[in-house]
Amino acid sequence: MKQISRRSFVQNFGLGIGATALLPSLVSFAPFAEQIPEKYNGKKLNIALCGLGRYATILAESFVDSNYCHLAGIITGTPAKAEKWKKQYAIPEKNIYNYDNFDSIIKNKDIDLVYIVLPNGMHKEYTIRAAKAGKHVIVEKPMAFTANDCQEMIDACDTAGVQLAVGYRLHYEPNHLEIKRLGQEKVFGAMRLIEVSLGYSLDGIPPTDWHLKKVLSGGGPLMNLGVYCVQASRYVLGEEPIAVTAQFGTKTNPELFTEVEESITWQLQFPGGATATSSSAYNCNIDRLYAAAENGFFELSPAVSYGPFRGRSSNGEFNFPIINQQAAQLDGIGKLILENKKLPNHISGEEGLKDMKVLEAIYKAANSGEKVMIT
Amino acid sequence: MKQISRRSFVQNFGLGIGATALLPSLVSFAPFAEQIPEKYNGKKLNIALCGLGRYATILAESFVDSNYCHLAGIITGTPAKAEKWKKQYAIPEKNIYNYDNFDSIIKNKDIDLVYIVLPNGMHKEYTIRAAKAGKHVIVEKPMAFTANDCQEMIDACDTAGVQLAVGYRLHYEPNHLEIKRLGQEKVFGAMRLIEVSLGYSLDGIPPTDWHLKKVLSGGGPLMNLGVYCVQASRYVLGEEPIAVTAQFGTKTNPELFTEVEESITWQLQFPGGATATSSSAYNCNIDRLYAAAENGFFELSPAVSYGPFRGRSSNGEFNFPIINQQAAQLDGIGKLILENKKLPNHISGEEGLKDMKVLEAIYKAANSGEKVMIT
Repeated sequence: MKQISRRSFVQNFGLGIGATALLPSLVSFAPFAEQIPEKYNGKKLNIALCGLGRYATILAESFVDSNYCHLAGIITGTPAKAEKWKKQYAIPEKNIYNYDNFDSIIKNKDIDLVYIVLPNGMHKEYTIRAAKAGKHVIVEKPMAFTANDCQEMIDACDTAGVQLAVGYRLHYEPNHLEIKRLGQEKVFGAMRLIEVSLGYSLDGIPPTDWHLKKVLSGGGPLMNLGVYCVQASRYVLGEEPIAVTAQFGTKTNPELFTEVEESITWQLQFPGGATATSSSAYNCNIDRLYAAAENGFFELSPAVSYGPFRGRSSNGEFNFPIINQQAAQLDGIGKLILENKKLPNHISGEEGLKDMKVLEAIYKAANSGEKVMIT
Repeated sequence: MKQISRRSFVQNFGLGIGATALLPSLVSFAPFAEQIPEKYNGKKLNIALCGLGRYATILAESFVDSNYCHLAGIITGTPAKAEKWKKQYAIPEKNIYNYDNFDSIIKNKDIDLVYIVLPNGMHKEYTIRAAKAGKHVIVEKPMAFTANDCQEMIDACDTAGVQLAVGYRLHYEPNHLEIKRLGQEKVFGAMRLIEVSLGYSLDGIPPTDWHLKKVLSGGGPLMNLGVYCVQASRYVLGEEPIAVTAQFGTKTNPELFTEVEESITWQLQFPGGATATSSSAYNCNIDRLYAAAENGFFELSPAVSYGPFRGRSSNGEFNFPIINQQAAQLDGIGKLILENKKLPNHISGEEGLKDMKVLEAIYKAANSGEKVMIT
């Protein structure tokens, strides 16, 4: 059985029909252009990455394209990784922490923000510890396991007087800013239906991988991938869902998926009359979004992965530049924190909490077989 | 509010990304090419169209491209239509019937087959009357309102010794033959997920239209459009679903949709482990199919409308010729009947009955909010 890695999957998608549409366009995209000016020579925001897994590496590489952020420190439990990263990214010894001495980061004035890229199950603890150390926090999605946990994290950051952001990179991506605009401004009339799904195959993954362990992942594809679909449904509509139904898929590999779901489908009912339906899976590849309104449609495919995205509406093809999503996100956040400004709502802890409420309701609906109202 | 007609919607889709992929290809497609030879000069199958609505007109035009079938007669309750069609298609007076004298068609040796294009609620009665008159029958989808009705129709045709086909045109369309092959032959490994949806806006339709009247339509978009999605899910997998969950969408226009659903979503669980999720709607336009297997994917968009279709798999773009779907269907059926051969299972009354069982289960699930097992 051939394994399709996430990377090759994304590349396959990018080389399909209309690949020419992927070439960077020179058409200006004002809101995006404003976020990343040509040149910035002021003080950069010093960030420490906490947890040095696969996504931390993607983030580390993206600092090259960042104007406002600097990779200043790391937190890791693996001495060999510390050594490797120290050399590769020129991290000063004094900015390297492990999980035992992490709290002493409070004394380190050369770290402004801790970016938590740990397995989901450690997000809450390390967000709270970073906040108590007086550091701003970016925490990866899903923010935590429950809405209550999210609230504790928000409270801890408020108490400490630091800012908290969730790693919602798509709020800085031009195709996503466009579908948000098309949906929320009702450019094609009232929204009726959103289909948005994300899955990738974990075929070949070691059974010990944290994604398969509930205590570390909090759940299966819904927690890790489905959160993007819930996010997208919410920001295209600009509404909160009022009810949800959901169904677990058949476990085709019960040996691997002993603790978390292998696949799941769900349906969100929104107060404006729209329905959003989604699939999320660890047993196949899917990455697409279609949104239908009274008088037109818009779609992205690839849709919510790392891209590059391809989009169009009933008015024609999108033609946005391909960007470094991670760098755009870092700069969007970094610039505001440097200017002592409040981060926008759409990447806030409160936003992560809203998603978590929906994820909890989806699991409840799938487990009970009943429609669950979201209050 | 701008109305988007089904035709302009289909055209919009065809003019999107990758429009060049729509140009007819000279690549031969053996199974299809065999069905329509260059030239045939033998006796043609004489067909009478029963019900002269919009789709009957599409069928009438398609006879021009048909090698084996001839538009020989009509059955209509509207004298003005009879007059118009008589002139336009050179229909002999003796081959024109109304609903009162229809049964006397038994004496007419110049009609071999009656193609029933009436509102859904009349399919059963006219199939049985045509069979009793000794005529072969093609009945449009959905075959009837219930599986029991379908069985009665099958029995009537068996008793009369005539053949019964359901108007499943997509079994003659090369993109659909390809996705059927890719799925059933497990070209990309075991199938995991199918997303297939069809909807079009009825905005602007007169409230008196038969699609809105339950006694004539049997239901809303599920009956009329969703049947394509159920069909496609079944023939891509080559399996029968074992369980279904379903949800009605919010009625945004309760004045129009007093008798039938405005939109609906459903999920089919298949014995091989795959899930098929679908949306069908009369309040927006959607027409897409995506199928994910262990090691690859394939998709069509447009998918199950009148096309032209655009497809690709994880191995690259499809490049099939654009065909006249209706002519291909007529010829596929006509040739076999002329040769006194049994029609294939995939367009048979039994196939229509299997779909109807699923449609009934979907309505039951949507009405009860419970998972419904299909036996």
